[in-house]
Amino acid sequence: MENGSSTARWCFRGNEAMTTESVSTIRGVLTEIYRNINEADPRPIIPLGHGDPSAFPCFRTTPIAEDAVADAVRSAKFNGYASTVGILPARRAISEYLSKDLPYKLSPDDIYLTLGCNQAIEVVLAVLARPNANILLPRPGFPTYEARAAFNRLEVRHFDLLPEKGWEVDLDTVEALADKNTVAMVIINPGNPCGNIFTYEHLKKVAETVRKLGILVIADEVYHHLAFGSNPFVPMGVFASIAPVITVGSISKRWVVPGWRLGWLVTNDPNGILQEYGIVDCIKAYLNISPDPATFIQGAVPQILEKTKDDFFSKIVDILRQDADIFYSRIKEIPCITCPSKPEGCMFVMVKLNQTLLEDIKDDFDFCVKLAKEESVIVLPGVTVGLKNWLRITFAAEPSSLEDGLARVKAFCQRHVKKQ
Amino acid sequence: MENGSSTARWCFRGNEAMTTESVSTIRGVLTEIYRNINEADPRPIIPLGHGDPSAFPCFRTTPIAEDAVADAVRSAKFNGYASTVGILPARRAISEYLSKDLPYKLSPDDIYLTLGCNQAIEVVLAVLARPNANILLPRPGFPTYEARAAFNRLEVRHFDLLPEKGWEVDLDTVEALADKNTVAMVIINPGNPCGNIFTYEHLKKVAETVRKLGILVIADEVYHHLAFGSNPFVPMGVFASIAPVITVGSISKRWVVPGWRLGWLVTNDPNGILQEYGIVDCIKAYLNISPDPATFIQGAVPQILEKTKDDFFSKIVDILRQDADIFYSRIKEIPCITCPSKPEGCMFVMVKLNQTLLEDIKDDFDFCVKLAKEESVIVLPGVTVGLKNWLRITFAAEPSSLEDGLARVKAFCQRHVKKQ
Ligand SMILES: Cc1ncc(COP(=O)(O)O)c(C=O)c1O
Ligand SMILES: Cc1ncc(COP(=O)(O)O)c(C=O)c1O
Repeated sequence: MENGSSTARWCFRGNEAMTTESVSTIRGVLTEIYRNINEADPRPIIPLGHGDPSAFPCFRTTPIAEDAVADAVRSAKFNGYASTVGILPARRAISEYLSKDLPYKLSPDDIYLTLGCNQAIEVVLAVLARPNANILLPRPGFPTYEARAAFNRLEVRHFDLLPEKGWEVDLDTVEALADKNTVAMVIINPGNPCGNIFTYEHLKKVAETVRKLGILVIADEVYHHLAFGSNPFVPMGVFASIAPVITVGSISKRWVVPGWRLGWLVTNDPNGILQEYGIVDCIKAYLNISPDPATFIQGAVPQILEKTKDDFFSKIVDILRQDADIFYSRIKEIPCITCPSKPEGCMFVMVKLNQTLLEDIKDDFDFCVKLAKEESVIVLPGVTVGLKNWLRITFAAEPSSLEDGLARVKAFCQRHVKKQ
Repeated sequence: MENGSSTARWCFRGNEAMTTESVSTIRGVLTEIYRNINEADPRPIIPLGHGDPSAFPCFRTTPIAEDAVADAVRSAKFNGYASTVGILPARRAISEYLSKDLPYKLSPDDIYLTLGCNQAIEVVLAVLARPNANILLPRPGFPTYEARAAFNRLEVRHFDLLPEKGWEVDLDTVEALADKNTVAMVIINPGNPCGNIFTYEHLKKVAETVRKLGILVIADEVYHHLAFGSNPFVPMGVFASIAPVITVGSISKRWVVPGWRLGWLVTNDPNGILQEYGIVDCIKAYLNISPDPATFIQGAVPQILEKTKDDFFSKIVDILRQDADIFYSRIKEIPCITCPSKPEGCMFVMVKLNQTLLEDIKDDFDFCVKLAKEESVIVLPGVTVGLKNWLRITFAAEPSSLEDGLARVKAFCQRHVKKQ
């Protein structure tokens, strides 16, 4: 269709491949589902679809972090451009913060500041991409990895996480999937979307498998220290002398400030292998043409990491534990939903939908659409994270909202259950 | 070389293409030149190489902007993830701010928030890239365009800016360079690196040429309103009914806060052509998988744009005018350097080096390296921005530092001039 006032012919076109790829992101799917909310429903919307509880008062971040940013911006010391890899005081503070959990000391030069953990993922996948290369991703997983792999033409091969084994990695499949073009394997611990925490022993086995395959581990620890079950959180970097580890993380989850966009990429590499194989130079080169976090947020990092009190962290973890308890007991009351194991970390849990028990629900996506429409509760269809007819539910909410949301899910299921 | 403790063979490799491309960025070249600074020189380093005067006290941003950010962060309303295109109040504020200079009103939906103007450039070049496409870039120019074009495999064709015509675009070359695969032309106004301001008439001719060619204009107006000569600043969007215009900009320069990373991409498109040709959908899709500016910075935008007083803006422009005067009179005293015209805007100016008058200076790069070493003054070799044996000098400095810096350049030239 020619536009009335435009008689010219235009040579440019949008790239269509671009518009089709984006639909499968969590952001895209949740937007679809939100569209079904019934505006006439007087009840509040209960958002159990995404990993951002920052809007709930009980999850408000510590004033120490707010002050750190306000002080940095008022100091006028951080108005200028930062260096490519991030300013040194921030990298030093992060290296010290992360070294506390490691058997060796990271150097500031092991740390690269990024725009949240997401940009760290973007960097590492861009750096590893080359013709015919493939990468091993967990199923269920975090679809940003699939999206960035597609963008970089990196072939994806999925290994399974096993619900019957507390969502451990199926290491036999990992070995079977890998070949000489495999470059890396991703693990997410604490686990999104499963809410599990890998044991020390399991992580060690991952490192040994990875070494055997000659690949590296990308350890997504954006939920670091959000652990409240029997397994403590162990960073993958502990095993970096077995195989090189690139850790990606951020302050988004532990400080409940995902909007602040401050993350890191860390080379845990006591043997210098990433340097030797050119990975370090590529990371620097990619960051040189990539956007940086605001300089004053970088300037606030030392104060945020050094001054935040343990009682803030424990408060957040205590609420998550309480939420997980509520979740697990309430979900058991809903017959068409099964939860393989009680969440022990992170903010999410995967539950299986038995839609054959339901009258008019085709699949997980249909479930989420109708739940949004009828109950103003948002949960994520499992298909988005790789498991059809499962649901990913976040339990990180004000406990009373979580109770309310799960009661609505229960009412919804009761209403839709097949009449015998 | 195998590492002692590593008997494994590793399958991953850094992508070499990546490390070679980055060398030609301004950041990369300036880093090279800084390496030559003589640590024993007791004088302060005078940085006239980049467009970031924020460290000079006279260029400190307004407390209104600092308060806006501090308030936003303390409100706890902006701790969560933002929407893909940016939060509505920020987009609305930007649409109103920019509409003041336009004959029509922008809508918030024409505005996309980005991490500075740089990310807006990244987005627009990614969106326009397709096999065989080419883009027309100015010479001299801003090498981020070349770098992002290379990254997206977009062929670059250069048109000239004409020093003898006050750095106007050579529109005849533009027509000769374009073919059916040309998608866009970039103009930078106020001009980096030339310090010129395009007239209303010239911009209109650009729009007419572009319409004839069926391409779009990318108008880089990151230095918007930094004009202090006889030509007022006219945004390219004024001519958007002739041909579609994508404007890229930011608060980096006008508020002297390049480290805050808050910019915008604007579709100036009263005829809806960018929508019709799929460009708008692609912009959204690309942003959907790209990093966002920190949400609280987005939250601060309305207050920054609406509350900043005119006297702050005039103060900055007055200092720049004073700097331009100092620059122009001092540079005339240096025989081996010619400045084709007095800067009327922006923060930079291009000057021609007559290195045949100098004893032991091979070229512009050599000049900059030796100047750094001997005088602790940093300027950018013209070759970096497309003109060999020219120099790009920023005059945006504390006036006394600028005097000092130019006196050192003069002393340097006198010391190196050929003895007759
Ligand atoms: C597994 C995982 N990795 C990375 C991210 C992105 O984190 P950030 O907000 O720090 O970019 C998320 C966010 O939800 C996530 O769940
Ligand atoms: C012409 C031009 N465009 C874009 C930019 C990037 O601006 P920002 O700092 O807002 O990303 C610059 C910075 O110097 C510039 O000179």
